Amino acid sequence: MKFIQEWTAAQYNPETKTASDFFKANVPGNIQYDYAVSHGYGDFQYSDNVKRFKEIEDYWWIYKTKLDYTANAGESLWFVSGGIDYIFDIALDGRIIYSYEGMFSPVEIDITESAYKGCELSVIIHPHPKREGAGDCRDQADQSCKPPFCYGWDWNPRLLISGIWRDTYLETRDSSYINSCEPFYTLNEERTSADVKFVTDCLQTVTYTVKDAEGNVVYHGTDPEFTIDNINLWWCNGQGNPYLYSYTAETSGHSVNGRIGFRTVKLVMNTGATAEPKDFPKSRYPAPITIELNGRRIFAQGSNWVNPELFTGMVTEERYSELLTAVKEANMNILRIWGGSGINKPAFYNLCDELGIMVWQEFMLSCNNYIGTQKYLSVLKSEAVSVIRQLRRHPSIVLWCGGNELFNEWSGMTEQSHALRLLNKLCYEEDFERPFLYTSPLFGMAHGGYFFRSTHEDLQDVFQIMNSAKNTAYSEFGVPSIAPVEQLKKIIPESELFPVTDTAAWIEHHGFASWEEDSWVFPSTLEHYFGKPGSLEEMVNNSALLQEMGYKAIFEEARKQWPYCSMAINWCFDEPWITAAGNSLISYPNIKKSGYYAVRDSLKPVLASARIPRFDWNPGDVFSAQLWLLNSSAGSVCDTITAVIEINGKEYEQISWKTGDVEPRTNKLGPTVNFSVPECKSDTVMTLKLKTSGDAACNSYKLKVYASGQKRNEKKLNG
Amino acid sequence: MKFIQEWTAAQYNPETKTASDFFKANVPGNIQYDYAVSHGYGDFQYSDNVKRFKEIEDYWWIYKTKLDYTANAGESLWFVSGGIDYIFDIALDGRIIYSYEGMFSPVEIDITESAYKGCELSVIIHPHPKREGAGDCRDQADQSCKPPFCYGWDWNPRLLISGIWRDTYLETRDSSYINSCEPFYTLNEERTSADVKFVTDCLQTVTYTVKDAEGNVVYHGTDPEFTIDNINLWWCNGQGNPYLYSYTAETSGHSVNGRIGFRTVKLVMNTGATAEPKDFPKSRYPAPITIELNGRRIFAQGSNWVNPELFTGMVTEERYSELLTAVKEANMNILRIWGGSGINKPAFYNLCDELGIMVWQEFMLSCNNYIGTQKYLSVLKSEAVSVIRQLRRHPSIVLWCGGNELFNEWSGMTEQSHALRLLNKLCYEEDFERPFLYTSPLFGMAHGGYFFRSTHEDLQDVFQIMNSAKNTAYSEFGVPSIAPVEQLKKIIPESELFPVTDTAAWIEHHGFASWEEDSWVFPSTLEHYFGKPGSLEEMVNNSALLQEMGYKAIFEEARKQWPYCSMAINWCFDEPWITAAGNSLISYPNIKKSGYYAVRDSLKPVLASARIPRFDWNPGDVFSAQLWLLNSSAGSVCDTITAVIEINGKEYEQISWKTGDVEPRTNKLGPTVNFSVPECKSDTVMTLKLKTSGDAACNSYKLKVYASGQKRNEKKLNG
Repeated sequence: MKFIQEWTAAQYNPETKTASDFFKANVPGNIQYDYAVSHGYGDFQYSDNVKRFKEIEDYWWIYKTKLDYTANAGESLWFVSGGIDYIFDIALDGRIIYSYEGMFSPVEIDITESAYKGCELSVIIHPHPKREGAGDCRDQADQSCKPPFCYGWDWNPRLLISGIWRDTYLETRDSSYINSCEPFYTLNEERTSADVKFVTDCLQTVTYTVKDAEGNVVYHGTDPEFTIDNINLWWCNGQGNPYLYSYTAETSGHSVNGRIGFRTVKLVMNTGATAEPKDFPKSRYPAPITIELNGRRIFAQGSNWVNPELFTGMVTEERYSELLTAVKEANMNILRIWGGSGINKPAFYNLCDELGIMVWQEFMLSCNNYIGTQKYLSVLKSEAVSVIRQLRRHPSIVLWCGGNELFNEWSGMTEQSHALRLLNKLCYEEDFERPFLYTSPLFGMAHGGYFFRSTHEDLQDVFQIMNSAKNTAYSEFGVPSIAPVEQLKKIIPESELFPVTDTAAWIEHHGFASWEEDSWVFPSTLEHYFGKPGSLEEMVNNSALLQEMGYKAIFEEARKQWPYCSMAINWCFDEPWITAAGNSLISYPNIKKSGYYAVRDSLKPVLASARIPRFDWNPGDVFSAQLWLLNSSAGSVCDTITAVIEINGKEYEQISWKTGDVEPRTNKLGPTVNFSVPECKSDTVMTLKLKTSGDAACNSYKLKVYASGQKRNEKKLNG
Repeated sequence: MKFIQEWTAAQYNPETKTASDFFKANVPGNIQYDYAVSHGYGDFQYSDNVKRFKEIEDYWWIYKTKLDYTANAGESLWFVSGGIDYIFDIALDGRIIYSYEGMFSPVEIDITESAYKGCELSVIIHPHPKREGAGDCRDQADQSCKPPFCYGWDWNPRLLISGIWRDTYLETRDSSYINSCEPFYTLNEERTSADVKFVTDCLQTVTYTVKDAEGNVVYHGTDPEFTIDNINLWWCNGQGNPYLYSYTAETSGHSVNGRIGFRTVKLVMNTGATAEPKDFPKSRYPAPITIELNGRRIFAQGSNWVNPELFTGMVTEERYSELLTAVKEANMNILRIWGGSGINKPAFYNLCDELGIMVWQEFMLSCNNYIGTQKYLSVLKSEAVSVIRQLRRHPSIVLWCGGNELFNEWSGMTEQSHALRLLNKLCYEEDFERPFLYTSPLFGMAHGGYFFRSTHEDLQDVFQIMNSAKNTAYSEFGVPSIAPVEQLKKIIPESELFPVTDTAAWIEHHGFASWEEDSWVFPSTLEHYFGKPGSLEEMVNNSALLQEMGYKAIFEEARKQWPYCSMAINWCFDEPWITAAGNSLISYPNIKKSGYYAVRDSLKPVLASARIPRFDWNPGDVFSAQLWLLNSSAGSVCDTITAVIEINGKEYEQISWKTGDVEPRTNKLGPTVNFSVPECKSDTVMTLKLKTSGDAACNSYKLKVYASGQKRNEKKLNG
């Protein structure tokens, strides 16, 4: 039996070992939130209020609860927690009975002997790890396994959190208790039959029941090893059904249940990449990054996931569910869980299993050089083993990765880094079949850019950059937009709303100076295309258009580069609070930006698409665009695609292309539209519309045309 | 006490378990050699005689010896072998007592109970591993840990070998026997003092004595853990003294001894490589490949080592010694022991320790896709752990590497390959501090080319190719030459010596069709520069000149690219038999080619050098060459370098450059020589001489000039 406790908490004095002024604590949750509520911090979303949390950054904390029962004969009493953030001690009546560093390892302590009715159980939380000598930024986390996002990032304010963040309870157990139970399986070569093996730790005989998704019993018995024939495979979104079997393992007094998704996954060489490089002196070929699911090469299209709340302890299954449903509805099949925000709660992975969303799971390393001291490696080993064992049963998880951008200038790690070699070893030992990457990007893959138009000398826009890029995977890229006006009103004081400038509220919410001076509002880019903005609404709408078109440019071009390119994963899907501007598709908590819908449409499995040379045009230019039929579906398709250009209120029909049959997971290049941009009295929009009548989804692109005689993009065109 | 046995051997019939016609067997050695001698195979170096070995390729073999003593009371009797090649059983009076697959693991079997005076000890050798379905080439070795060289390579004939290849004896042991004893150490941060720890397995108390290189005792006692202060560090050739301490571990009846070289080694990021790549979409930076020895970044200059005998079991310490002395005398500081030829005998590593030759040691994988079946991984694990434990005490070994060219088209492995992930894991566990590479080349590094002049469309020569290359390490590159005439006469029937054509003897000795049609003689390249050859001697001399100049081009350009580039390691140093033509610097067994001396001179620590744009010139061309002072020494240097050009019997003094002081391990770019090539009545040689008077070694380059009006290189110049 489980017993949920009520908890209170307070600041703790480690010298006197005392605390006072206790307040109500949410478990699971984060102590900083509870403290803020009880101390009247007010709305931390508003203006720069979030800075108030700085004053409690180095506090010690204590949680406490009173036990009001004892174990019966033959029963033991356990304190169980899914995870406590980050360095902590557990005490009974002030006597420490357990200490640990790390937030991702479950805690299970037998307290039968020491607990009694009325005794006090407490959890002491140490201050956040901060590496000596590091400034107030993510560097402070480079000797710990605490995900660094909360030390401040270009979309997350500095807000250091800790506390009892996962489900926590007391539990009585007897000899019927199933201590652990995990299913493993091996598929035959044809993937039609599965040898299942349950590894179970229990004193009693355990009975296993496995049912298919329709509820039919496919196995019932006490033998933990058996074969299931005629299996249904688990597929990702867009390729088939994410089929799940359910199981129950049962004794006289206890049962556990779970699900099994049968599938194989490998990372294989990208098509065409094996023959590279061509000339001597000859280096290696790119790293393999094509996902082969059940023997089928998949184009991975999706997004980078960030923590959906600043207070990650307070994330609920409902929050996960609404966001993951939006992921699926956007025709995505993969999420990259980057190292900066660590590991999600269990509900997240269950939902990904159900929805057919593949998960690229990183360990808790990001943008730092995590030096392999014995102390650090020992915590990393303990945490990583816990994480692997918790998650390896999920069919949705398709690869492990050491962390984010570790082989780049701002990190400084290499394949010689002991931390990464350790993670390779642990994944090999604990999860032999699942692919493992040291980091992203590896050779051939790419991250960035994070803008619509480069601010470097070349001043190219995303269409130009992507059309000349050749990478095996785009595992991060972003195009920012300003938050919707109604969202801005919740976070920016009315007087600062317009004109948009770098006030404290805009800065704190990442509108300015979050990465480059201008990011993420990028007013100079907006002004370049659209001139001085007349209102906040106009500015927000223009910014939204650039995000729409920018994401269309990248996602659709990456799809066209298939099969050499096998991934397009934008930065980022969600956000943990309302940012003033940023690359996310969702504004906190679940407001879909127009960019979200543009991406959803660009990711339709069968799509009419055009290769657009650039975004802005002058009258007299010849606008040329290749037509494509993109087919990432598992079926053969066919359509007639008609290209129409609308400008100055007129439609010009350009071409009608009969695609013929296009094979499954194959794209087809069609003819090129050539169109002389007509004279325009004022700045306007030129829309290329692709109309369809068969299998393909239609499509359209809104492009900028300057008034005759302006040529505002001339420098770029000559560049 | 050790007892060396006499052995005989014979072909073995595994079905009847019988053998007859026994012949004398060399132990250590290779059974195929003994069989050939006893069966009158004749000189296998001559013509294509080596093909005779094909007929015995799939034989089973048996070695046998009679024991003529038994153990005394308190003694045990052991069969000990350093290694047996490759799958074998050990039997006493026909009863199998031990079976193993793998040639790099020592065998130690206690036979006290079963052995008696007069009993027969036998070793049954199974046929060579050949993966089912593979053709008669290295592919056959892709599921075994047998080094693939002997399956046939572009310099090694197909000659499959096996047998008792390492020192093998019987030994009596008592309770005083030291089963194992291995020193480990940790240096303090300043590398001035070492905490030494012996890990010893022995029933008795062991006394340790450590002496410095001068014979002074620096420790004597029974405590296996102690500190040595004021240590001398081990340095590689050219950077300091390869200082070695010696130790003895002793009991009442047994002693073992060995040496310790104190040093630290890391692989660090190449200078300038950390900031790459510059633009978005951005991939990773190159892999680190700069050796940092005792905190000092080293330019690694050396060669690739291949097995010095076809019959590797017969390699002697003397053979190692003469070749390794030549390595040191060539100013080299590193040897790459590529995966194709596996692991050398112990004497090799002892000599490298003594001579200050750094060793890049690969595991036994090369140019194949070693699929990670459970069977293969299990053999690989056992063999790799043995190898690591045997070799990790050597200061000369600076890095482990999974194998050769595994991330290239002809292999097909990736960082997902379980074999490589396993090796990474084992090196982490067994040898934490030593760097580990998955393979060579990694991203940024390069292999090739292997010619003086490209046979591709661009037709560039090595000067042109190297001057425009930008790599972090050139870990393989080759320029072939034809063997010296007196060597050719030993292997090619007189009637086939000239004109040089692709007869069986030339082909078998790798003069033709060994890699490309023309390799390694490359007659078309020779004819391009020198016209139709008039004699064998002329052809050999011209070929030698191209090898000299080609290796100068590559080694000196790689040195100029320091510190971005940190390695130049040519393919290859030695050869296992007399090849008709090839990239080695040494003709078998120890005949130094003229290319050897050219390389030796190009690797002098302080050297006057020029960046030569290309090898061949026309009258009227402006020959331009940058002058450089190359300083890889640990000291500051200074010189005045005078450039003189000699052509048509005249000397033209071009320039005199006062270099000023040049810092340790730093190069300096000087002025550029510009010289109008004069008219020439016939083809001639233009020599650029760099004369020195200070710290630097002088240098010279012989370049080709065509007779006026010929322009034989025109196509290339326009290319």
